[in-house]
Order: sequence, then structure tokens, then C-alpha cells
Amino acid sequence: MSNFGFLHLRLVNPYDVAFQNARSAVGAADVLANAEKFETVAEAVADCSLVVGTTAVGHRDLQHSLQRLEAGAPLIRRHLATGPCALLFGSEKFGLSNQDMSHCHWLMHIPTREEHFSMNLGQAVAVCLYELKRDADAPVNPGEGSPASSAEIERIHDVLLTALRASNYPKLNTSDSFDGAVRRLVRRLSLQTGDAEFLLGMLRQIVWKLKRNEQAES
Amino acid sequence: MSNFGFLHLRLVNPYDVAFQNARSAVGAADVLANAEKFETVAEAVADCSLVVGTTAVGHRDLQHSLQRLEAGAPLIRRHLATGPCALLFGSEKFGLSNQDMSHCHWLMHIPTREEHFSMNLGQAVAVCLYELKRDADAPVNPGEGSPASSAEIERIHDVLLTALRASNYPKLNTSDSFDGAVRRLVRRLSLQTGDAEFLLGMLRQIVWKLKRNEQAES
Repeated sequence: MSNFGFLHLRLVNPYDVAFQNARSAVGAADVLANAEKFETVAEAVADCSLVVGTTAVGHRDLQHSLQRLEAGAPLIRRHLATGPCALLFGSEKFGLSNQDMSHCHWLMHIPTREEHFSMNLGQAVAVCLYELKRDADAPVNPGEGSPASSAEIERIHDVLLTALRASNYPKLNTSDSFDGAVRRLVRRLSLQTGDAEFLLGMLRQIVWKLKRNEQAES
Repeated sequence: MSNFGFLHLRLVNPYDVAFQNARSAVGAADVLANAEKFETVAEAVADCSLVVGTTAVGHRDLQHSLQRLEAGAPLIRRHLATGPCALLFGSEKFGLSNQDMSHCHWLMHIPTREEHFSMNLGQAVAVCLYELKRDADAPVNPGEGSPASSAEIERIHDVLLTALRASNYPKLNTSDSFDGAVRRLVRRLSLQTGDAEFLLGMLRQIVWKLKRNEQAES
């Protein structure tokens, strides 16, 4: 809850030993210190204008409309603009009872595989709150730096060919298309500017050493 | 992992006591029984053509490109069509070391609030795997049954007005627009067909009782 910025925890009849242990969890102190205790679900959700219950598909209750998390989250976000919403989770072992569910406007489930639909409670809460905060428009990070220019790629291609020539790489003389194959290979590396310079520096050093050895031999 | 259908767990130097305890977890037996142990990250990811490391933003490592989970997941899904991918998680306490990260093509983080970026390991894994299986096109479930027809809403409106008349509801005679206000109220209930019938039955019973009392009085 604290990771995703949901700071209002309400507990209905918590098991006090577990609750006191949880209060000592690293980093979550504020959420737990401010958690409110209630004796009934009705009291806990009294000021909420939307109550969404969570359930594993295996316990599907046909009395309520059931939404997949991906579809339910936008409905909750829309509601939050107008009033408070409670997301209701049952106990780890039994989930929500029919009585608990009668306080819910609708139910939501996390899509899991049929063979294993029962989730760890903490993981289920994390997944639901992640989805509520999810940013569908998060841009893909193109990576640090900018892609290497064609000129940089060409320099790498040139130095690599020089190194191969100095190493008597066999295909160099037998294949007419080898030059193009090397250029395409270097392009496929999707090098960033910094990495292109780094690679070029290494290749130049190799070429220098190869040529020095050549001179020493002759 | 088992909830979301990721069945290949690889462990690098696991703490054996914890590993043996985990093997006994309810429902996850197959994933753990088939888990493979390795001595180094290099061996664990040897056959993977994409290795994505996970990190909290607080430990951001500028040597790598860093993607938000929402943006990174589609890149991973695209890669999975062509070859195996490893999603690498560090230990609960320390996360991935720089040495571990050097085996990664890029890094991914779960967007959390700045004040609390360090996540529970099991919750972080659940959130990442949920996102990998997430269906952006999941349709909103319109609920069981179909919305009540206008005719059904009109019948409820009629019977409700009859009940109010029989109850001497004061506004009935003082406001010309009361009729429309009741109709709009009934529309706002967004009743499903079944619920509309249920409500109509209750109202008809109330009207029956009110009229019977009336007859008994007269």
C-alpha cells in the first residue's frame, strides 16, 4: 500500500498478534500506525460511495457483476474523482464471505491461470494497487545517450575490416558481399553513441597492435 | 509465478533452508520442485537471449537503460516470440549487485512513490508477472443480465407513485415536477432486468398492503 501511495488502511476484526507484528514492518510504519480498526464491514465502508470486493475466480459469486482487474481499475479511478472507494480483501485463508460481499457494488478478480487461482493476500493487494496507479501512457525509455550515427557505424565498419585484413580473416577475399555483411552486422548491434566510441577505441587499439606485429615481422 | 503461469524458476546460490521451506508452500509445489539451481548468474541465464534486471529506482544504475514496467513488459513480450527471456531479481535485502546487472540487457522498475520505493520481493515478482500477462483489451463486464428496459423502469415509477399516494407522501401534491423527479431517480438506479422485477414485486406488495389498510379503515 505504501509503495503505491494508498495510505488509508482499515481493518475489520484484525488478529491482534499479526497486526502488532505488521506494525513493525520496515518502511510501512505510517500506514499501519494510522490504520483504523472496525468491528464490522458495514462500519468500515460506511463513508465509501463505492465498495469493490476482491475474489479469486474459483469463488465466483454470481450475485455480483465480476470485473477483471484491467477493466475494473478504470471504473474505480473514475469513481475516485467523485468520492471515496473501498477495495475490500478477505482473509488469506477464506477470502470474503457472502455477507462481506453483500456490502460490495461489484467484484473484481486478478486474472490467473485456472490451475492456480488462489493468490497470496499481500501479492494480490500489490497487484491491484499497481494496476490502479498504472500509467498506460508510460513512454518507452530509448536508453541513455542517442543511437550511433551512420558515420560512427561506418567508422566501426572500416576499422573492423582493417583489423580483419591484418588478421588474414579468410572470408575477406572469398566473398564479394562480405563488406556489406559486416556493415549490416554493425548496424544490428543498435549501438548508442557512447558504446560506439568505446568499441571503436578497442578496435583501433587491436589494429595498432596487429600492424605493429606486422612491422616487427617484416 | 504459478498464478500467472511462469513455471521456470532458476535460483542462483539459494539459501537452502528458505528454499526447502518454500518448496512446501501450498499450490506452488510444481514450480519449486522443478526449480533449477545454479552457482552463478552467468550459468543461470546462459540460454536466454534477453536478460532483464529489476531494480528499485533508488538503486538506479546509470550504466543501463531503465524502463518503467508498463513500457518494459511489451518489449519482453515481443522478445518472447523469438527466444527465451530471463527476468532477474536480486535478494530481498540487497537487490541486484553491479556484477549481476552486467549480465542484463536493460533494467526495469516498478513505479512506486519516491518516499517508499523498496518493495517486498514476492510482491515485486507478482506485479511484474501480472503486467507480463496483462490483457490491455480486457472488456468491461456489463454485469449479469441486461439493463432494465424503459418499460420496466416506467412500471417501477408507476407503482412507486401509487405507493407514495397511498402513503400520503407530502411532496406529491406540492410539486408539479415530482413525477419526473421520481422517473429520473429510478433511471439513475441503473437496474438490471432481474433487480427491476425484484424491486417491482416488493413495491407491489407494499401497495397491496397499503390499499388493504385503506379499505380496512374506510
